[in-house]
Amino acid sequence: MNDIQTINVLKGLVIDGVSKANSGHPGGAMSSMDFAYLLFSEYLKFDPDNPGWLGRDRFILSAGHESMLIYSLLQHVGWLEMDDLKKFRQLHSRTPGHPENYMTPGVECTTGPLGQGAAMSVGFAIAARHLGAKFGTEVFKQKTWVLMGDGCMQEGVTLGAASLAGHLKLDNLVWFYDRNKIQISGQIDRSVSDDYQKIFEGFGWDVLEVDGHDHSKLREAMDHAQSTGRTQPLLIIGDTTMAKGAFSMEGSHKTHGAPLPPEEKAKTKEKMGLKDEEFYAPEDSINHFRRNFDKLRSEVKQWHAMLDEKMKDEGFSELYRQCFESDFSHLKDIAWDRSKPVATRNAFGDVLESWADQLPNLMGGSADLEPSNMTGAFAKKVGDFDRDHHGNRNLAFGVREFPMSAICNGMALHGGVIPFDATFLSFADYSRPALRLGAIQKVRVIHEFTHDSFYLGEDGPTHQPVEHVMSLRLIPDFLVMRPADAFETQVLMKTALVEKRPSAICLSRQKLPILDIDLDTVQNAGRGAYVVQDTEAEPNVILIATGAEVALARATAAELTDLNVRVVSMPCWKIFDEQPQEYRDEVLPPRMVKRVSIEAGVTLGWQKYTGSMGLNIGFDQYGHSAPAGDLEKLYGFTPDQTAKKVRDWLAQI
Amino acid sequence: MNDIQTINVLKGLVIDGVSKANSGHPGGAMSSMDFAYLLFSEYLKFDPDNPGWLGRDRFILSAGHESMLIYSLLQHVGWLEMDDLKKFRQLHSRTPGHPENYMTPGVECTTGPLGQGAAMSVGFAIAARHLGAKFGTEVFKQKTWVLMGDGCMQEGVTLGAASLAGHLKLDNLVWFYDRNKIQISGQIDRSVSDDYQKIFEGFGWDVLEVDGHDHSKLREAMDHAQSTGRTQPLLIIGDTTMAKGAFSMEGSHKTHGAPLPPEEKAKTKEKMGLKDEEFYAPEDSINHFRRNFDKLRSEVKQWHAMLDEKMKDEGFSELYRQCFESDFSHLKDIAWDRSKPVATRNAFGDVLESWADQLPNLMGGSADLEPSNMTGAFAKKVGDFDRDHHGNRNLAFGVREFPMSAICNGMALHGGVIPFDATFLSFADYSRPALRLGAIQKVRVIHEFTHDSFYLGEDGPTHQPVEHVMSLRLIPDFLVMRPADAFETQVLMKTALVEKRPSAICLSRQKLPILDIDLDTVQNAGRGAYVVQDTEAEPNVILIATGAEVALARATAAELTDLNVRVVSMPCWKIFDEQPQEYRDEVLPPRMVKRVSIEAGVTLGWQKYTGSMGLNIGFDQYGHSAPAGDLEKLYGFTPDQTAKKVRDWLAQI
Repeated sequence: MNDIQTINVLKGLVIDGVSKANSGHPGGAMSSMDFAYLLFSEYLKFDPDNPGWLGRDRFILSAGHESMLIYSLLQHVGWLEMDDLKKFRQLHSRTPGHPENYMTPGVECTTGPLGQGAAMSVGFAIAARHLGAKFGTEVFKQKTWVLMGDGCMQEGVTLGAASLAGHLKLDNLVWFYDRNKIQISGQIDRSVSDDYQKIFEGFGWDVLEVDGHDHSKLREAMDHAQSTGRTQPLLIIGDTTMAKGAFSMEGSHKTHGAPLPPEEKAKTKEKMGLKDEEFYAPEDSINHFRRNFDKLRSEVKQWHAMLDEKMKDEGFSELYRQCFESDFSHLKDIAWDRSKPVATRNAFGDVLESWADQLPNLMGGSADLEPSNMTGAFAKKVGDFDRDHHGNRNLAFGVREFPMSAICNGMALHGGVIPFDATFLSFADYSRPALRLGAIQKVRVIHEFTHDSFYLGEDGPTHQPVEHVMSLRLIPDFLVMRPADAFETQVLMKTALVEKRPSAICLSRQKLPILDIDLDTVQNAGRGAYVVQDTEAEPNVILIATGAEVALARATAAELTDLNVRVVSMPCWKIFDEQPQEYRDEVLPPRMVKRVSIEAGVTLGWQKYTGSMGLNIGFDQYGHSAPAGDLEKLYGFTPDQTAKKVRDWLAQI
Repeated sequence: MNDIQTINVLKGLVIDGVSKANSGHPGGAMSSMDFAYLLFSEYLKFDPDNPGWLGRDRFILSAGHESMLIYSLLQHVGWLEMDDLKKFRQLHSRTPGHPENYMTPGVECTTGPLGQGAAMSVGFAIAARHLGAKFGTEVFKQKTWVLMGDGCMQEGVTLGAASLAGHLKLDNLVWFYDRNKIQISGQIDRSVSDDYQKIFEGFGWDVLEVDGHDHSKLREAMDHAQSTGRTQPLLIIGDTTMAKGAFSMEGSHKTHGAPLPPEEKAKTKEKMGLKDEEFYAPEDSINHFRRNFDKLRSEVKQWHAMLDEKMKDEGFSELYRQCFESDFSHLKDIAWDRSKPVATRNAFGDVLESWADQLPNLMGGSADLEPSNMTGAFAKKVGDFDRDHHGNRNLAFGVREFPMSAICNGMALHGGVIPFDATFLSFADYSRPALRLGAIQKVRVIHEFTHDSFYLGEDGPTHQPVEHVMSLRLIPDFLVMRPADAFETQVLMKTALVEKRPSAICLSRQKLPILDIDLDTVQNAGRGAYVVQDTEAEPNVILIATGAEVALARATAAELTDLNVRVVSMPCWKIFDEQPQEYRDEVLPPRMVKRVSIEAGVTLGWQKYTGSMGLNIGFDQYGHSAPAGDLEKLYGFTPDQTAKKVRDWLAQI
């Protein structure tokens, strides 16, 4: 067997997988196979016996629809069985329609939504460079290799992430752009005339253009990627032919998202010299593919020996432990002056600053809202991660919300760092696709969203979140937290830290009083909801509030002293829903139906807790540009107005 | 008065406006003023007596936080009063924190969320070019001028929109990038090293770099913008100084988002030779600013005379009427074969194809999902709008969802065209910021979202919408429609056409049976919800469903013949909520509490209609990659399973 023959075997697997599933994307996988094969068989550093080896190069298939490409490679590596390939796109198989890292060994991240694999790769590269600075570049010298298609290149998130990668001079990042110029709707020239060489040079990248089917040129490009002395991320543009090797359909966009027709399939296999056999993968092909495995194994062995040696240094091993284990028992709490109101964004900033020393793997920053998100003290303490300071831990993301959150997903997936990011809550819409993809992958990323309601005031309706808190609550496996004061903020930040899913912490611009409850009680914020004020008698009205409106709920209760009012703070719905029934019934007694929600956002959704006959005090329209105090009155968020609403409602039910 | 003095007067207004509000962004407004002043006083074509003149150049302040810049200019134009400037950022003023087109004459679109003004401008330029092709470039020769800052340039949506503008060779589009290199978090070099000249040349733009304070260079650049023979969009990079003209704070990022300190303010005014007077704007300054108004007025007069002349041609005037008036009474309905199931995405495609002939101003396309969104027949009929075919009406957007929807917002705001766009529902997350900004501006854009549930099958969790329908419902003034069959699709498309707000039409990949109801009844889909199947006796259970699940609800009812089951199709919540109470009570009788929702998406939110004790059949997790039929069974969406759930629930309440 030689390279060409092995490549043809791999292409045969792609064709068969898609045909058997009667669904999938063969064309791009075939155009990318020359590069992918050479990468896997000659360049990619990995441990054939352990897909999780920390020192491995990462390979990211940003063009996730080409999933059969990576599955056929992983079958040749030995991490997937032929049976897996036969179950392509079938229920509970290890070969889903798009690569899912939680389903398949050797898949680094979930891709499919275009551009996000590329953007996540920047996070991988940042994490690797940072760990290299911390533990030695001989330990963490891994590269991140990305395979992208025309579609990925058209996404704004790709361009934004590329711009940041160029700025940071991430020389450990290599993107291979398989330019086959075909997409679902036909030739890319219907939509694109970009000169990517120029554009990426403008972003500060090193760019090579090669014939993507010429192995010597591809090897030259990858040798260049591995050469020392380079100081920029590298884009290799490989000009290729869609469905390369197909009998008569080379270049056809009909191969993009559908199996080859049966006759074309047969003739293609014949043309490629493949046996007329489904899922044909002879031993020879696999052996040829694995020709460098011994070398890889010996490199991995050396790496472990080197690490063992380094571990003998106590400082090294202690830092290593702190970065790769999740032990937060040592964290010291902040005790704010209870008499002084604190905006929860400031509380977040205070905790972040304190954690900067206590968590050496905490790394992140703001999308150019540092003084508003209160991440400045952290930034000052740990310095900007930049081209010359890979050991620093603040990321000055620029105005790039979506790349930012995707990059944080990549950092979390790489491991060794705990990423956070920050912007205004209103701009959570910009990063939303990454929030969802983070939740699908269950990565621990802490998203700080400040200016969490119309109380931000003058910036007006574009900046005032209305539907955002609720819309984030809808994302499965995504935690939305809206703490009521500084202490709740601290409790919930710790919850976010120990969780194995992403969290959004929604914070006030305005100052909020410290709740008049003891520190033990406030720990219950970590249970999602708890009673912050009760009545001696059986309560006959429950006010449920979140964030800033908890103080309003208490003030409302103070106007309703003739009633027996309980006030519940409910900073995280999802966690509350996961508590034992007993606890939930304790906080919200099932028989107790007179329930009121108070939240400065849309009311739709609150009926879950108040019932459809409950009272939902909220805000279901766009705001206005005006000082917060004026808006508060206009929108009915003063205690006298809320108390009146409660009374009117009680009178009417 | 001369230019410099007038500019200083304008800067004084900026400084005073921000100071009085004690909130706002003076620094960027001051760095941009040289360009903006020259543009407004010498280059911009507008009718001083009518902000709505159709032939006007459009000016878009993409750096919306510099709002005092445009307000001071509009005060000089005469469309705002000095009193308006004094009410900057105050409740109900015409000078909100960020420019809102619905508040202020002379503001073309709402900006503030960075990058979207730039992206919308591409839509303005497309609409202008298209109308030029239709009615003569002597009628619609307007340019779109955009002022952007460093933040705008960093947003992915800007880069994606620029890429498309370059491809389309929109030579009527001019972006001025005020490169003052300062943003909220400090110098931009913390985050950016982009060579924008190279990048934009790579996008196919004409690029000039000038000293943004040198009037002769600025005039040269704008003369170039107005010269004939150019064939590309133009980017003018103006190198400027933050807070240009300030006494001691030039270049300081502290002027980005806060008033100048009192002493700095006084000394700055002194330095600029301004009277020590708040909101100082002498007659002389205003007269100098308006020195070209007579010329402008005479040009506008000529334009109207020319248009009147052209209107004498009946074909011209009829087409003009069709494009600028909203008369849809002539639309012919499609009558699908009732015996054959039709995917609602196909129904949408059928209607679109039919409208292609009937609506000469319908214009739009897909983000490279043409064969999946079924917009191909439309595209074939009307041809791609490209650099050589401005009269064509299909837009091949490429994989650029967010730019696409922002561009559609811009087209709608320009007027004369009815824009639509298309992608998978899952990728509504990508365009979400534009969906919201369209709703804030109440633009009529029809967003087609296909593959609207896990029923898309094999593509798996990244592509399967779960929370999307509900999360779109949360956006104020945004209509979410999920039709149950082909006929409902047609009814709702017409609703979307006559609405003065954006609509999302969520459509199935899978085939759906035509509901067995008459055509008069199906018109009630336009009321948001209606009874599609009833029982002769008083109903004792109501099944409420949307989209594909309406057929499932009917099949479920068929399993529950011993009960009196009503089935309600509820394709658009918002429209239903806006119906008279009487109608709503008719569909969902208030006393009737046994309510079940069936929708293949998150259940949170449905409690609004079912109460918290109702049964919500839905899908609250990420999906799997597998054939739809397997998922249907696994997730409990077969009639026997749903019927069993209803029975179990009834037994328990």
